[in-house]
Amino acid sequence: MNTDTLIQRIEPPFWFSGMHNPELQILFYGFNIAQCQITITNSTAITNVKRTENPNFIFVTINTQKISSNEIDFIFRLKDKSTFIQKYELRERWKNSSLRKSFDSSDTIYLLMPDRFANGNKNNDNDSNTVEKYNRELPGGRHGGDIEGIIQNLDYIQSLGMTAIWSTPLCEDNEAEFSYHSYGQSDVYKIDPRFGTNEDYVRLSEEVHRRELKLIMDYVTNHWGLSHWMVNDSPTNDWIHQFENYTQTNHKRSTISDINASKIDRTICLNGWFVPTMPDLNIRNPLVLTYLCQNAIWWIEYANLDGFRVDTYNYSEPEYISKWTKAITDEYPNLNLVGEITLRNQGLLSYWQKDSPIAKIQDFNSHLPSVMDFALSDAIQIVFNEDDDTWDQGITRVYDLLSKDFLFPNVNNLLVFGENHDTKRLHHIYNNDIRKYKMAMTILATIRGIPQLYYGSEIGMAGDQYLGDADIRKDFPGGWENDENNAFNPETRSEYQKAYFDFTSKLFHWRKTNTAVHFGKTTHYIPENNVYVYFRYNTNQAVMVLINNNPEYQEIQTARFKENIEHYKTGKEVLSDMIFDLSQSISIEGKSALILELE
Amino acid sequence: MNTDTLIQRIEPPFWFSGMHNPELQILFYGFNIAQCQITITNSTAITNVKRTENPNFIFVTINTQKISSNEIDFIFRLKDKSTFIQKYELRERWKNSSLRKSFDSSDTIYLLMPDRFANGNKNNDNDSNTVEKYNRELPGGRHGGDIEGIIQNLDYIQSLGMTAIWSTPLCEDNEAEFSYHSYGQSDVYKIDPRFGTNEDYVRLSEEVHRRELKLIMDYVTNHWGLSHWMVNDSPTNDWIHQFENYTQTNHKRSTISDINASKIDRTICLNGWFVPTMPDLNIRNPLVLTYLCQNAIWWIEYANLDGFRVDTYNYSEPEYISKWTKAITDEYPNLNLVGEITLRNQGLLSYWQKDSPIAKIQDFNSHLPSVMDFALSDAIQIVFNEDDDTWDQGITRVYDLLSKDFLFPNVNNLLVFGENHDTKRLHHIYNNDIRKYKMAMTILATIRGIPQLYYGSEIGMAGDQYLGDADIRKDFPGGWENDENNAFNPETRSEYQKAYFDFTSKLFHWRKTNTAVHFGKTTHYIPENNVYVYFRYNTNQAVMVLINNNPEYQEIQTARFKENIEHYKTGKEVLSDMIFDLSQSISIEGKSALILELE
Repeated sequence: MNTDTLIQRIEPPFWFSGMHNPELQILFYGFNIAQCQITITNSTAITNVKRTENPNFIFVTINTQKISSNEIDFIFRLKDKSTFIQKYELRERWKNSSLRKSFDSSDTIYLLMPDRFANGNKNNDNDSNTVEKYNRELPGGRHGGDIEGIIQNLDYIQSLGMTAIWSTPLCEDNEAEFSYHSYGQSDVYKIDPRFGTNEDYVRLSEEVHRRELKLIMDYVTNHWGLSHWMVNDSPTNDWIHQFENYTQTNHKRSTISDINASKIDRTICLNGWFVPTMPDLNIRNPLVLTYLCQNAIWWIEYANLDGFRVDTYNYSEPEYISKWTKAITDEYPNLNLVGEITLRNQGLLSYWQKDSPIAKIQDFNSHLPSVMDFALSDAIQIVFNEDDDTWDQGITRVYDLLSKDFLFPNVNNLLVFGENHDTKRLHHIYNNDIRKYKMAMTILATIRGIPQLYYGSEIGMAGDQYLGDADIRKDFPGGWENDENNAFNPETRSEYQKAYFDFTSKLFHWRKTNTAVHFGKTTHYIPENNVYVYFRYNTNQAVMVLINNNPEYQEIQTARFKENIEHYKTGKEVLSDMIFDLSQSISIEGKSALILELE
Repeated sequence: MNTDTLIQRIEPPFWFSGMHNPELQILFYGFNIAQCQITITNSTAITNVKRTENPNFIFVTINTQKISSNEIDFIFRLKDKSTFIQKYELRERWKNSSLRKSFDSSDTIYLLMPDRFANGNKNNDNDSNTVEKYNRELPGGRHGGDIEGIIQNLDYIQSLGMTAIWSTPLCEDNEAEFSYHSYGQSDVYKIDPRFGTNEDYVRLSEEVHRRELKLIMDYVTNHWGLSHWMVNDSPTNDWIHQFENYTQTNHKRSTISDINASKIDRTICLNGWFVPTMPDLNIRNPLVLTYLCQNAIWWIEYANLDGFRVDTYNYSEPEYISKWTKAITDEYPNLNLVGEITLRNQGLLSYWQKDSPIAKIQDFNSHLPSVMDFALSDAIQIVFNEDDDTWDQGITRVYDLLSKDFLFPNVNNLLVFGENHDTKRLHHIYNNDIRKYKMAMTILATIRGIPQLYYGSEIGMAGDQYLGDADIRKDFPGGWENDENNAFNPETRSEYQKAYFDFTSKLFHWRKTNTAVHFGKTTHYIPENNVYVYFRYNTNQAVMVLINNNPEYQEIQTARFKENIEHYKTGKEVLSDMIFDLSQSISIEGKSALILELE
């Protein structure tokens, strides 16, 4: 037997010394490897050796605290008594790694899809080991965007006033089609070669940090792709959820907390597959759970990450996904993770945020620091087309949502957004009416929470989800060598693009300077005539925001706001620099917004 | 000075010995009465004498535990040193009064408006001391219905399968118009003479109890009528909320729990008037609060009540309205009070129920045992017109609401209803389609909570709220001597009325027999094709409910319900007595419901 080929995979491929959790579960994969006996020099460091029903796997758990060197020699003894040594590396951690800072409500996040952002390296558009080939003609095909393309445009992202980047997944997805989004991963320790190498990803992280930006990885806990090597040769029979016939999730995440839910509905929600190409991981199996915990931690430590966005967070068994989250935040107490919780009811959304008083009703704690505020994004996707605020319509929708903030354990750590790669695009909904975009962005820039923008909207890019997801995930103009229009470059931006970009850039550059909108308190007033007025303030700064969602010009009497303005005389509008006298009424154009810094 | 006329009012007019709270605040009202010195034989029994800025009032607080007889002699000493004695009675309480039972989810409540139900006594149609006169031609006028009319039709209410009666208010309302609803009261210790006398109300209570029914009083804590004698001559300047100009409540009850709400919005919500004829009571004033607590307790003890429905509950300052509620439930620990909480969000609704985990976020406890489930009534008012359950439409609305039951501290104590005197009528919404009525009633009869029906719907009575509230508060046919049609009498009911009545009566008579629908657990299944299936069960009984809101006939496969049916073989439909084999699929007509008792 050739020992070089016996071990086909080791995961994690290396680890780090001095972690909070000293236990490390190493997966060795190779033909009939379970037949081997495994020892190391300090035999007490091995705390568990787990063989499964698949002889090609062996899981060795070691206590890294008992390992004094940076290299471990695993001695494999074969059936024929011959032995070989497999070296395993324990690397140094980043300095103060465990206390790394993360993103928070002082940041603004730029969400991009790497395949659609910029093709920085044409040489990796195709790769011999991955099935789907470059085809930019195909809306849902691979368009060649990559890590190099992101790196080349970091200055652009910075010029927009963004402070953090969330790229959709970059790990290998070897599906034959629709692999560009990389949510169906085939190797979670490897950057997809069509995006670049693991080293490229580390370089991206370095370049991001050099600009004092932050890097957020998109992590998928719920499922892998059908092409994942452990789906094709699974360690255990219960590694993924299996059904007699293909069973799709019913998407009813309310079953999780519903005391009336039938067991079968809850089971199908959690164990049913997201789509036929995404086998659903069984994180009740401790081998799976530990594998996923370590993989996430490995990426943080390896690529020096600033946080995670976690895909389909509450499609996984709550008790176990919360263990995953807790394992990560036990290692990195300041790390922020924002979960995709596609629920619209704020009570149910709150349920998923760490230390939720709602989840406490059921003695549950997700340990998830941040959730996406889908309730708000739903509102932002409709209100600016509602000229009338009768009943709960119009801007009242936003007011009504914020009136329930007390339900959340931490409103500042909600991710606030108007759109993402799974929703309609604002410019489609609002028919490229820049006035409506400006109102939406003003809200995102000034209400509690962490604003997240979606690539392309800042240059007025539209797209109709009804035509398929690819239409809301179009290529960024200028990301490809021969693109007719290059919107990355201020010189070549069209007037149309410039109008959007300049507004967005100015707004979010301003946001960086204002601590009141980062962590300040909020006072808001019941909307009148479709005009919403609210204040953000702390001991140093106060901001007054007026959103006039009425198509008509409005004259706003200020007496009503006495409790917020009595210590101020004027307000300086942050985009126009106009000065408003607070003792007078404030004029505001129809379908427009004002942000006044009070002085 | 004639002492007979000096004291014009004493409130409460008498009290009861042996109350849990020994303190009693007696209001003496008369011209310049505050000049008097007041003593009693056991002078230590007087714990407080409170004079206000109005010399016509004096509030004397006594400790009733220190009074040994059933009569107290209050000695009034005038300025001229002359004295007179005012006797005050402490009556015996009802036997086991403090432990009186109340209504609960084993009951079904019949809501009626006395002016519109039946005119049992034509002699009290007009009264010399009240302004508005009988005018049955006027939709919003006084139609002559009265307590005698209710008494005469208690057998009818019982024949419908009802077990409790909630009449809208009966205390005197001396407004010049729209006084028929009696929500703007002018004397809260006196039944409106056009409804009868206080003694008539006691007789109603006796007749109700003789039939083993329950009597629920509609109590108004938030406001009185403009004609209330204490509005015209107020004990204190802050007895009612005053504004420079008339200020109406903004109705935004969310401001109460909203951490972002401005103070001014919250103040106007709570202190603004409901309508110009209903001055808003300031229950922060302890004299007002005690007055209201005692008035409510007086009615319970005087008329032997089984509970309260509390009007506009959360238009009053939360801290103080909860004290009112606690004072009552401290006296009567088993008494049920259901508050009108017109909020649609279940988190906010839960906030108002006693021991709410949501209110606990803000260290608040309303002490209110029951709230009206307006979220459900909203759904019931729309779902049966939605033939399609795409997204969250159709019967899914009801499923989605029940999936959040965990938010409530006590789901069994929610009042569930499809309509009341302030909402659209179901027969109007559903265009008198009896199939839709049957589905709505089936839900009310079988889901958790206390069902409440609204008079007239059981005989198919419609009415269009768009034409004014009077149209949803029409006279019950047969309640007036010369009515062409008498629907109280089975002999004279039309075929149309009979169809509604017989169904309703059979359904709610059955409900009385089934403990599983009273207090049982619920398991429900995600609706498919607009069909909703749920189970109610306890250790003795199990009920399967199928609501087919799809216009088409459906064939329901039962395998999915295994966890609920595996111990049963058949289901007996409670209205048709048809037997269904649970091992076979169940056929159900379009727009219909089945209730199967499992055997």
